[in-house]
Amino acid sequence: MTTGSAIFPPQASRAEVEGGMLFMPKFDAEGLIPAIVSDSETGQVLMFAWMNAVALERTLATRTAHFWSRSRRKLWLKGEESGNVLHVEDIRVDCDQDVLLVVARLAGAGVACHTGARSCFYRAVDLQPSAEGPFALKPSGTKPLPPTS
Amino acid sequence: MTTGSAIFPPQASRAEVEGGMLFMPKFDAEGLIPAIVSDSETGQVLMFAWMNAVALERTLATRTAHFWSRSRRKLWLKGEESGNVLHVEDIRVDCDQDVLLVVARLAGAGVACHTGARSCFYRAVDLQPSAEGPFALKPSGTKPLPPTS
Repeated sequence: MTTGSAIFPPQASRAEVEGGMLFMPKFDAEGLIPAIVSDSETGQVLMFAWMNAVALERTLATRTAHFWSRSRRKLWLKGEESGNVLHVEDIRVDCDQDVLLVVARLAGAGVACHTGARSCFYRAVDLQPSAEGPFALKPSGTKPLPPTS
Repeated sequence: MTTGSAIFPPQASRAEVEGGMLFMPKFDAEGLIPAIVSDSETGQVLMFAWMNAVALERTLATRTAHFWSRSRRKLWLKGEESGNVLHVEDIRVDCDQDVLLVVARLAGAGVACHTGARSCFYRAVDLQPSAEGPFALKPSGTKPLPPTS
């Protein structure tokens, strides 16, 4: 799905989409686009969420990350309750303009994950013991939390 | 959808999924899980793709990234034709185990994107001129390609 609004024009030719300099984000059949969030200070991937056109519009207008919660089916200002707001410094788009990479500075306690971890990716698959699975997880190389004051 | 295979057991309680040390990846209604790929050398996000259970199984068994191509509806060994294979060094999973972060070393010409760019995220939204859109893109801070010899 492409919104085709004045803000987000419909995708043109493949050459325009991949090589052009007009932002034409492509939303899927549910009106959503994947958004990867990385930490502007460390480059670390913090989280993954979805945006609809309204969430993206608000993110662009406020420079604060908004998402669409698929489970709660509502617009979601990240950090609205926790204070762990994401201040958007850069929004990158992939070759076919159907994925966003939001580079953001973590405010509040410096926590992006609802579990209290800085990054949602705090565990890694333990690749050593077996190539057949089931696989164990181990703590990933995620940096420890900063002091919360 | 959860495959519930011996390799990828079905998701248990939320506490187990978020805090446990067993890999229980959750596949969506189409049997897919999002996979973010980052560069093990730079931490840069290189690309975004989807895996089904078979692609994930092959990735774990071979330590070489396999994906499911939604457009071609087939299993896809990344770099099979181009030689730009992704050697997997780490597979991280997010809090609810429904997104993967694949940390990989780029082989071949050091190019992850089919356009010839190292990263698919070679453009960023120009946030300066207008908060209302449409928005222009600009080259992102992506590092230039290494010499291809």
